[in-house]
Amino acid sequence: VTSRTMAAAAPASPWPMISIAEANRISLHYTGPLKLEQRKITDLLNCVLAEDVIAPEDVPSIPTSIMDGYAVLSSDGAGEFEVVGSSRAGGAGGAGTAVSPGTVCYITTGAPLPAGADAVVMVEETMPGASAGRVKISKAAKPRQNVREVGSDMAAGERVLAAGERVGAAEIGLLATVGVAAANVFSRPKVAIMSTGDELADVTAPSPLTPGVIRDSNRNMLIAACQNLGAEVIDMGIVNDNSAALEEALDKVIAGGADMLITSGGVSMGDRDLVKPLLEKRGKIHFGRVLMKPGKPLTFATIDVKDKASPLLVFGLPGNPVSALVTFHLVVEPCLRKMMGIEDPALRRVRVKTTQTITLDPQRPEYYRVSLQWDDGQGCLVAISTGGQRSSRLLSMRSANALLELPQASGELPAGSVVSALLIGDLSFADRLASKLTIAVPPRPRPPLLAPPFTYTGKASKPMIGVLTVSDRASRGEYEDISGPLIVEVMKEYLATDCEFICRMVPDEVDLIANALQEFALAGCALVCSTGGTGPALRDVTPEAMMKVCDKVYDGFGELMRRRSLEEGVPTAILSRQLAASLGNTLILNLPGKPNAIRTCLDAVFPAIPYCIDLLGGPYLQGSDRVKVFRPQGK
Amino acid sequence: VTSRTMAAAAPASPWPMISIAEANRISLHYTGPLKLEQRKITDLLNCVLAEDVIAPEDVPSIPTSIMDGYAVLSSDGAGEFEVVGSSRAGGAGGAGTAVSPGTVCYITTGAPLPAGADAVVMVEETMPGASAGRVKISKAAKPRQNVREVGSDMAAGERVLAAGERVGAAEIGLLATVGVAAANVFSRPKVAIMSTGDELADVTAPSPLTPGVIRDSNRNMLIAACQNLGAEVIDMGIVNDNSAALEEALDKVIAGGADMLITSGGVSMGDRDLVKPLLEKRGKIHFGRVLMKPGKPLTFATIDVKDKASPLLVFGLPGNPVSALVTFHLVVEPCLRKMMGIEDPALRRVRVKTTQTITLDPQRPEYYRVSLQWDDGQGCLVAISTGGQRSSRLLSMRSANALLELPQASGELPAGSVVSALLIGDLSFADRLASKLTIAVPPRPRPPLLAPPFTYTGKASKPMIGVLTVSDRASRGEYEDISGPLIVEVMKEYLATDCEFICRMVPDEVDLIANALQEFALAGCALVCSTGGTGPALRDVTPEAMMKVCDKVYDGFGELMRRRSLEEGVPTAILSRQLAASLGNTLILNLPGKPNAIRTCLDAVFPAIPYCIDLLGGPYLQGSDRVKVFRPQGK
Repeated sequence: VTSRTMAAAAPASPWPMISIAEANRISLHYTGPLKLEQRKITDLLNCVLAEDVIAPEDVPSIPTSIMDGYAVLSSDGAGEFEVVGSSRAGGAGGAGTAVSPGTVCYITTGAPLPAGADAVVMVEETMPGASAGRVKISKAAKPRQNVREVGSDMAAGERVLAAGERVGAAEIGLLATVGVAAANVFSRPKVAIMSTGDELADVTAPSPLTPGVIRDSNRNMLIAACQNLGAEVIDMGIVNDNSAALEEALDKVIAGGADMLITSGGVSMGDRDLVKPLLEKRGKIHFGRVLMKPGKPLTFATIDVKDKASPLLVFGLPGNPVSALVTFHLVVEPCLRKMMGIEDPALRRVRVKTTQTITLDPQRPEYYRVSLQWDDGQGCLVAISTGGQRSSRLLSMRSANALLELPQASGELPAGSVVSALLIGDLSFADRLASKLTIAVPPRPRPPLLAPPFTYTGKASKPMIGVLTVSDRASRGEYEDISGPLIVEVMKEYLATDCEFICRMVPDEVDLIANALQEFALAGCALVCSTGGTGPALRDVTPEAMMKVCDKVYDGFGELMRRRSLEEGVPTAILSRQLAASLGNTLILNLPGKPNAIRTCLDAVFPAIPYCIDLLGGPYLQGSDRVKVFRPQGK
Repeated sequence: VTSRTMAAAAPASPWPMISIAEANRISLHYTGPLKLEQRKITDLLNCVLAEDVIAPEDVPSIPTSIMDGYAVLSSDGAGEFEVVGSSRAGGAGGAGTAVSPGTVCYITTGAPLPAGADAVVMVEETMPGASAGRVKISKAAKPRQNVREVGSDMAAGERVLAAGERVGAAEIGLLATVGVAAANVFSRPKVAIMSTGDELADVTAPSPLTPGVIRDSNRNMLIAACQNLGAEVIDMGIVNDNSAALEEALDKVIAGGADMLITSGGVSMGDRDLVKPLLEKRGKIHFGRVLMKPGKPLTFATIDVKDKASPLLVFGLPGNPVSALVTFHLVVEPCLRKMMGIEDPALRRVRVKTTQTITLDPQRPEYYRVSLQWDDGQGCLVAISTGGQRSSRLLSMRSANALLELPQASGELPAGSVVSALLIGDLSFADRLASKLTIAVPPRPRPPLLAPPFTYTGKASKPMIGVLTVSDRASRGEYEDISGPLIVEVMKEYLATDCEFICRMVPDEVDLIANALQEFALAGCALVCSTGGTGPALRDVTPEAMMKVCDKVYDGFGELMRRRSLEEGVPTAILSRQLAASLGNTLILNLPGKPNAIRTCLDAVFPAIPYCIDLLGGPYLQGSDRVKVFRPQGK
């Protein structure tokens, strides 16, 4: 050990520590989409289109049938008809046949609609006729029924695919449909990959290895990672920790016309870490340390190449296999995506739930390897740890399809935390992602009602008020409804504004009450007063129906009505479950059934009702001189 | 048209309609994993291993260093030491050097730990010594510090990869690590693909096409789909609707040694649909109709082949391109996956939210094409429709990466419904999946809420009180927030205990309010007072946000605040939906917005607040002499 060696091992790294976001920004800045090339349709899978694809003609170009069946004149209706010919897909036979009133033409799916016909009856809706050459049509056809109109699948001039789109099977089908047998795409990047390190042996080195020697796992791994993205790989083998050998290899890479060089090893602070010095000598290092775990020594440089418009991009990945693959995904992959023409080259991010306690690192943000799975109980993606996360433990990358983005922080992240995860694998092959089939409509807002805007439509010229009597017996006609008419009478007395009253009666059934309330709301009622069904009896379900359909509950109404009734000497008022709630713009209010009680309760709450309707976006109602309506000053 | 033709076009299909689940069951029943083959490590990507891979030796095989630095005796502690040698990765130099008390050895990452040493000090924790060949260790090392123990990354005999695992880049790295230069995997399926139909023209056919002729989109599309899964494809071209030509093509497929034949077209009820008759003649049709939309005529048959253990699998896909690709994914792909050795060959399923109204089909379960994207606001995957879903409109497959599994039902599925989706594309290339970085510890149960690491100022010695102003306009800066500061002023006046106040403002959005409340709770606030958003107006959603995140609701607060306001002569107090609730140890309380009203309401409920916080496990708050705080005797 000489003093020179010791000096080289001095602690301070000359490279400033930058954030991963900055590393992405810098490396993407020096990366551009590659030149275009034309590829045949059989060789386009997973390429990125460099130009829009426009439909040259309408699809279909003539009206065709959507079904196997009979082309008919819809005005002929049902009945038995003569079959005057047939029209088949591909135009075989019958395309010239014309259908005249009283006749039909056999037709197959995709076949041209014969002249004269304006609809197709599917074969399932026909029966053989009384004699050969005749058919019975059981159901009259509507005009244009089962007819695929000209240009309805694809219109001439329509942009079928856009530049920047990645080509999958469906896109290849679309290219074929419009007759594009070859398309311009971005070239596949040529990536040279080498491993560096005296300690490395080839994968074929027999066990047991010489102590201190390890097999080179990075090169084959990074080759596969690049190939998976569609890159073309130049395998540069293993290069020893020797400046001359490294420089010779670099010259070969440049001579081979590579767009990118990926090395692994030789970038940390050891005195034999020779990659950075070489890159400094031959090009420009843009960063040499990144604040991340794993992957801190990640290095990025560009080397200008004679007669080449864009420089050679060089990524010096750390030698630890986990660090190498994680930094590949986080920093190299976005650059490869950008070279291949993908518009937003960033890794895709989802939010997932953790399933175990994770200790955070206070020194560096960590990219924690997980396998994402679907959890039916929780209804979300959950992250299953791949185990010990040390950067030398490559098993931590086994089956990993995502990297959790853990913050630089002290303490522990409890199980069940929601964190961002960057996708590094195809979830359509994830373990146990399959799960039970699910359908759940949103609990609220409710489908039919929701149709916004819920603004008061005022179809009637007057504001509308619904009155709903909820009673099994009254709705069966076993006694006359007194409460409903009384509510109308009292409301008319209290309101100066002339309103239209709509009265309905339903039995004590949750769904019928709920429906009625929804219908009142849809009709544009500003206010609905219901009576009945708010007590403890088993059949009393008016509040339950309201809770099913309403958005907001105003407890204050029930509280005040009960309090006022108690003050009037009715101790059983505490049994009342009266409430007010709103459904869109409509205020719904339960009132008692008894005449006296109606006045007592309305007297209590009426002053607040017009302003409530204002706030809900309903009509402006004025109180009569019998009541005091309250609106805040200036409203 | 002869009567024979008419009879052939009779409506009743001879094939029973089976469910898609049954179609999967039957086709998978006749499908088995293919024979094994050995592939080199450079040719294993996306293959499935047919055997376990066992580590032949420990990794590392000797104790090595995790860091660049100095190998030391931990018992020596800090101080200045003589550097007696160096140990480098790959065993170059110094592996024979022994460290004795008072000396250290320079060491690089991955290098063997010299005899005598029991720990490594990272170079960042050292400084050059007073003279050459000496180094200062600033911090005493713990025994085994930075030492990678024998077998700690991979133990001899450990199963590193299991049969049935799909090989990605990391798995290739693992194979290289353990010296597996070639592995046994399941063979890639040989799939013959043909299109049938007189109406088909090659992709190169010039525009305009003869009326009734269409370009063959299915073949190139299905070839790409098979290749994407790793299958080997035999392109059989286009075959006309002619029994002899079809049979000749079938013979070629069999002679070519294909494992599977995929046809498209010729399987519906048209009288020129000749695929089924041929399959019946040459093999056995297991199903000929499936209750699904699109794809009803999907047909599956097996044909025994002389001298071949397993039969030729034949899938007759419908001719419409969408039907062809959808049935490929739903039924053919699982069989290909099974042939390739994937243990659970089913498509992976996730749950997603719809973003628009979808009309359901009462006749058939529908597989609705969507592009899945991540929605940050909702925190879930959302399904963006690919547009009109007619089976002839191939544009409905463009960019589709999932199929919604819609039930056979009448009516409409509203936007916001949660439905199952089968993944048919790689989400790591999905549109706009990227989104903001998120960390949220679980809302319930919330152990972490009350403990670090997410305390931002939780270390503050004072109790914390959050004040949340909920207002669209104030948060847009359209008017100044008066209520928030006023709440702080009043609380300071009422509390003798010195508290820290954290004020925030959010618009009237459920998720933003809910997030803010959670963050206050996470920060360790004992009390959160919110103002705004408790009325009937459509934008008023503060109580809804509270209900989303809180554990317990205390109705008494709202009742009392309304009563006191009524007593002050404000009849519209009954419109207020103010409430109090707790989230973990945090009490959350709605207060009115108006200055006078704040005092009125706080005067009413304040006496109970400190004791409520006691019961919730929060800090002990003392009231000032301006208010009377109530605690039961002895508390």
